Amino acid sequence: MSFEQLETPVPLVDVDVMARNLDTMQAYADQHQLQLRPHTKTHKSVHVGREQMRRGAAGLTCATPHEATVMQQASDDLLVAYPLVGHAKLDRLFSVRDDVALRVQLDNAEAIDQLYAAAVRHDRAVAVTVEFDAGMHRVGVPSLDDAIALAHMVRANPPLEFSGIAFYPGHIREPVTSQDASLERLRHKVSEAVQAFTEAGLPPAIVSGGSTPTMWRSHEITGITEIRPGTYVYNDRTTAEIGACKWDDCAFTVLATVVSTSVKGQAVIDAGTKSLGREPIRGASGEGWGALLDRPEVIVARMSEEHGMLDLTATDWRPRVGELVRVVPNHVCIVTHLNDVIFGVFHPCASVVFSRSADPRVV
Amino acid sequence: MSFEQLETPVPLVDVDVMARNLDTMQAYADQHQLQLRPHTKTHKSVHVGREQMRRGAAGLTCATPHEATVMQQASDDLLVAYPLVGHAKLDRLFSVRDDVALRVQLDNAEAIDQLYAAAVRHDRAVAVTVEFDAGMHRVGVPSLDDAIALAHMVRANPPLEFSGIAFYPGHIREPVTSQDASLERLRHKVSEAVQAFTEAGLPPAIVSGGSTPTMWRSHEITGITEIRPGTYVYNDRTTAEIGACKWDDCAFTVLATVVSTSVKGQAVIDAGTKSLGREPIRGASGEGWGALLDRPEVIVARMSEEHGMLDLTATDWRPRVGELVRVVPNHVCIVTHLNDVIFGVFHPCASVVFSRSADPRVV
Repeated sequence: MSFEQLETPVPLVDVDVMARNLDTMQAYADQHQLQLRPHTKTHKSVHVGREQMRRGAAGLTCATPHEATVMQQASDDLLVAYPLVGHAKLDRLFSVRDDVALRVQLDNAEAIDQLYAAAVRHDRAVAVTVEFDAGMHRVGVPSLDDAIALAHMVRANPPLEFSGIAFYPGHIREPVTSQDASLERLRHKVSEAVQAFTEAGLPPAIVSGGSTPTMWRSHEITGITEIRPGTYVYNDRTTAEIGACKWDDCAFTVLATVVSTSVKGQAVIDAGTKSLGREPIRGASGEGWGALLDRPEVIVARMSEEHGMLDLTATDWRPRVGELVRVVPNHVCIVTHLNDVIFGVFHPCASVVFSRSADPRVV
Repeated sequence: MSFEQLETPVPLVDVDVMARNLDTMQAYADQHQLQLRPHTKTHKSVHVGREQMRRGAAGLTCATPHEATVMQQASDDLLVAYPLVGHAKLDRLFSVRDDVALRVQLDNAEAIDQLYAAAVRHDRAVAVTVEFDAGMHRVGVPSLDDAIALAHMVRANPPLEFSGIAFYPGHIREPVTSQDASLERLRHKVSEAVQAFTEAGLPPAIVSGGSTPTMWRSHEITGITEIRPGTYVYNDRTTAEIGACKWDDCAFTVLATVVSTSVKGQAVIDAGTKSLGREPIRGASGEGWGALLDRPEVIVARMSEEHGMLDLTATDWRPRVGELVRVVPNHVCIVTHLNDVIFGVFHPCASVVFSRSADPRVV
């Protein structure tokens, strides 16, 4: 098997780099006695979920009920970190087999009502963590009083079980040092929340947080018990640019073929928006939509759906038509979502297929 | 069947609007005696491809060999408008059944060499159109002399058959009037190309062009024989904003559920980047990543992977959690690509499933 046999564009995972990333994060969580509950939206792979559980993850995080129905093959402890609304979604959640512990993260009374009705309909307990807004202003209750009211509502409605609180500091886009004001504000916010819930008679057993830019500082947030990082498994150009990983920690690339060099100063590859997504780098400078693994100075400067225009102005390299390149995407979760199958690459040359439902197989 | 039974986010096509869009484009092509060869990258659906053929399309256009293997179920005359490089892709192209006429559009000698080798390997004729750069600077030969040299190379290498020339005026982002300088330059460029090829003893039987913003002006480009529009089947927010269709011609929406109204001035829906793509409007002003079909003043102002933040500042409407909305995406081709199945909606209420490989079925 060689790269030449693959029909590009095709997503590849360097299995050795991924294993190192998984080890490093689990070691960090163990060192600081944090429960690691990786977010599976990044990989959507039963194989990778099992690798995370094998290393000691406490359970897995999902964004949708559909992801939960897949990840029940990897773990018997699942969190859907999303307010679930609507019969179809809730019925799918409760289609997960009975011995899987379920938790839902939510921020409003309507979602509690609907979850309660579904839990009764399916005669099944479900844990709830109430999400408060830690400053991102996306979802999450802005007022702690309102969040506490929701927690009381959960506790008053078995088979719902109040199990704690959650937050997502997605507004902090750059990795922070211990001294940064944004981390200090977050610490204050979390500590205030823990105190308020405790004083209200609702001491949170779980305090769930974490995001990629803040992940290595999680232990400095007093009270936090659980982290839910996702991207660390593969990393991507954004994670590297903001300094939350090294370039060599990028496990995921899109293998692409140079298909045209007709226009001067550029080479066109067959990976465009439909392969790479159109995700800008955030929290750091960085033009373009991806960069070559072996030549990070060469970026995908423009894209059409099936065309990626490599900017050759920063390099002497002049590729020929037919040459293969590996692109590190800006945001890997989106690229996973664009593919049904991901190829895992071992060294020197065998490869293994990850897919959403099957075990990996060597090809 | 009602919308409430669907698990959102889910893509919907208004079948009546789509039928009207298909009729209008075919009528335009017929009126001006242009061959219509719709680009199927927009819909990727055998069902829709058949609807296009039924109305009189000359054949279908694909972006990849994989699309060709699907579209052979809808048409026996396929163009892959992309330089095909690499064994895997070429072998897939020639896996299309023998009675399907194949054409490939390309812009370089390496692609000709590889196509020739594959055609010999599979003992099968294939037509070639040579793409010249009409000003977009993406692919396409910049110099007509070089383009003519490629055409000679094709003609000298049966079973390759030189069948004409092609261009894609993707640099023209706004609809043009007959008087616009950009259209005048394009007319000049095409007429120059036809003349040069003819003088070189290679009169092009096919002159293939067209893009969405220029589509209704195609008949004013002297010499053009074939158009390859894609987006017109569904249209999208960009097409409407640039004036190439009316808002009521938008057939494609993403049905989504309001999942949180915790943060003031916004409502969060369950359609984010993984459902809508992150495609800006180009060629016209317009913020955000999509707009509500029934309330175009409400836009998706920000997105995460599974969150779309509706900006409520321009409306008095205050949705409740659980309410359904229909989002017209900025760029519909990307949204098709994000889904395996699309629901077709008839009025009043039945729906039909389109998928990439199966016939539609009513659910």
